[in-house]
Amino acid sequence: MKNFNFYNPTKIYFGKDETDKIGKLCKEYGNNVLLVYGKTAIKRIGLYDRVINSLKKENINVFELPGIDPNPRIESIREGGKLCKNHKIDLVLAVGGGSVIDASKGIASAALYEGDPWDFYSYKAESNGALPIASILTLSATGSEMNGGSVVTNFATKEKNGWGSQFTNPKFSILDPANTFSVSKHQTACGIVDSLTHVYEYYFSSDQSFLNDRICEGIMKTVIHFGPIALKEPNNFEARSNLMFSSTLALNGLSGFAKTWDGFNHTTEHLLSAYYDIAHADGLAILAPHWMEKILNEKTLDKFYEFAVNVWGVEESDDKMSVAKEGINQVYKFYESIKMPLTLREVDIIDPPLEELAKRATKNGTIGRYLNLDYKDVLDILTKSL
Amino acid sequence: MKNFNFYNPTKIYFGKDETDKIGKLCKEYGNNVLLVYGKTAIKRIGLYDRVINSLKKENINVFELPGIDPNPRIESIREGGKLCKNHKIDLVLAVGGGSVIDASKGIASAALYEGDPWDFYSYKAESNGALPIASILTLSATGSEMNGGSVVTNFATKEKNGWGSQFTNPKFSILDPANTFSVSKHQTACGIVDSLTHVYEYYFSSDQSFLNDRICEGIMKTVIHFGPIALKEPNNFEARSNLMFSSTLALNGLSGFAKTWDGFNHTTEHLLSAYYDIAHADGLAILAPHWMEKILNEKTLDKFYEFAVNVWGVEESDDKMSVAKEGINQVYKFYESIKMPLTLREVDIIDPPLEELAKRATKNGTIGRYLNLDYKDVLDILTKSL
Repeated sequence: MKNFNFYNPTKIYFGKDETDKIGKLCKEYGNNVLLVYGKTAIKRIGLYDRVINSLKKENINVFELPGIDPNPRIESIREGGKLCKNHKIDLVLAVGGGSVIDASKGIASAALYEGDPWDFYSYKAESNGALPIASILTLSATGSEMNGGSVVTNFATKEKNGWGSQFTNPKFSILDPANTFSVSKHQTACGIVDSLTHVYEYYFSSDQSFLNDRICEGIMKTVIHFGPIALKEPNNFEARSNLMFSSTLALNGLSGFAKTWDGFNHTTEHLLSAYYDIAHADGLAILAPHWMEKILNEKTLDKFYEFAVNVWGVEESDDKMSVAKEGINQVYKFYESIKMPLTLREVDIIDPPLEELAKRATKNGTIGRYLNLDYKDVLDILTKSL
Repeated sequence: MKNFNFYNPTKIYFGKDETDKIGKLCKEYGNNVLLVYGKTAIKRIGLYDRVINSLKKENINVFELPGIDPNPRIESIREGGKLCKNHKIDLVLAVGGGSVIDASKGIASAALYEGDPWDFYSYKAESNGALPIASILTLSATGSEMNGGSVVTNFATKEKNGWGSQFTNPKFSILDPANTFSVSKHQTACGIVDSLTHVYEYYFSSDQSFLNDRICEGIMKTVIHFGPIALKEPNNFEARSNLMFSSTLALNGLSGFAKTWDGFNHTTEHLLSAYYDIAHADGLAILAPHWMEKILNEKTLDKFYEFAVNVWGVEESDDKMSVAKEGINQVYKFYESIKMPLTLREVDIIDPPLEELAKRATKNGTIGRYLNLDYKDVLDILTKSL
């Protein structure tokens, strides 16, 4: 097992009606809260009122930044940072999915920075701190509720970059599965793919860690088991619970403590999203199976064999390559069954600049840490994704 | 899934040569360190010198409390507490296994308490704080390196009690698998049983949590896979690594986030240890299989079936009861193969006061939260353990 640090100071309050603790929990950090959220969803399900009531009960002054986009934009970060400065905000409270939480991390950092917060996301400046961040999660997907990372898009430069600091882990996150009952079928499926892909990026690695792999398999099996149940019965508490905490564990340090993040899927998808503003998970669903087919070879066979047998229940056989291929086939079939797109065409990306995209994906020479893929490999994956 | 909180602020530094970071890491907490350790083991393997050198390089004043017993005693806690007060200790550094780390938690709490620290362990007083605690782990077993709990024995009252507070999680722990190379075969086997039993106590529960169960199975499979390898090849880094972090995850909140601790094995074993000072894991190895046989019935059948199939690889069959029984049989066989005792006689407990023990184990009426066992049940388990 390779050397690693393991540290995650976010406190999770998981379960039914934990939402109502929000006022008391926020009060520990001060009186001025910036409430960050997306479009209308949290109002439609009554969550907005519930949060406001709990905050008001503690006499907290609530300032608001609504309208965070699904691919959160640097403009929102700038605006939120100004609000924090102007209103002496004590805590940034994200109520929403990963995009809202990600935006809150940028905002909380921008609040303590004099320059343009895109400096962080373009790796030109270090952060010296951030306001305390908290979240109430409404979408099981990104894991942002229990990590320090965030992804922000700059459409002016066609860049979608990830960044985080030691200051951007939420102090606490409330995970009430009932807050995800109203998530649409497609958004639910997106969350399923997002969680799975976070695990893939660690699982498919040449680092040896038996324990790490078994935990990855446990998370994947849970997502695959409960994903279809949640799609069929959106109010199934057990299914929503398992999906929710699986998505948290898929990217809180646990799924990859002793493994190297491959990165192919996320980096390439960020590029697609920056060009076309497609849903992150749509891009991941399209890319991952083609990527798997590309990297399956004699060197990676054992890992794909394990994946097929331990995760997808493919029957063991001496013909390891067939078993491995059947595992990848199961991924296609599963994504199809949960109605995720399998081609770029399905998300209205017609005739994309394949060579330009492949060139940008491999601007550092190669992409992907398990197998280093070059320009031709990426062009091939993109072409097959058409 | 039931409601739960999940929070673990201990930072882990895992891997080869992480030990040498100890000086710099301690320095962040101050200049006066109380070094707590056991008998001669850490000197024999050169770890003592390595730690002292690293601390001296940072000009840290080192005070020492050696001689912590395998079942740490309240007398050591009292003595350590006094040393902390007399020398204005800034950090209590445990170098050893679970007993040493447990003792350090008691000591760090006693340092800030005016009364007798047994007050904590007899639940007569609340702790208001503790000095910072850190550890360098030398034995993969108890998980104490990443939780707030500790177990201390009072031979005067024949009590071995568990206690912890929000202040007793180590600030950081160094887990260098090479520091466990010299652990004896029996101690290694004890660690294996200890880790497994921590998982059993959560896994066997009526709380439904698919995700939690899959993670438990991943930890158990890892321990079962690498235990025999470490026994055969004590210097096998990969085996020692997997055992080490498995034992951490088995009791850091991850193996039981959504499950209720059963407690039968630990409570009953603590009673045995308090009477006979046997190794904790010897007692656990003797009790657990008999306990499993006792609680296997129609109500618990599905769980034992999963255990047999998912953990021990027993072939699936419609005759679920036979599969479940074969799972328990595998536990016996595994414990036998790693040379753990299966009867009280093997640890020189001859003609114990069975009725007195069963009465004390059920002093609150019943014991065990999965199935509530009464006096007669416990007497039966103890009798079968003779």
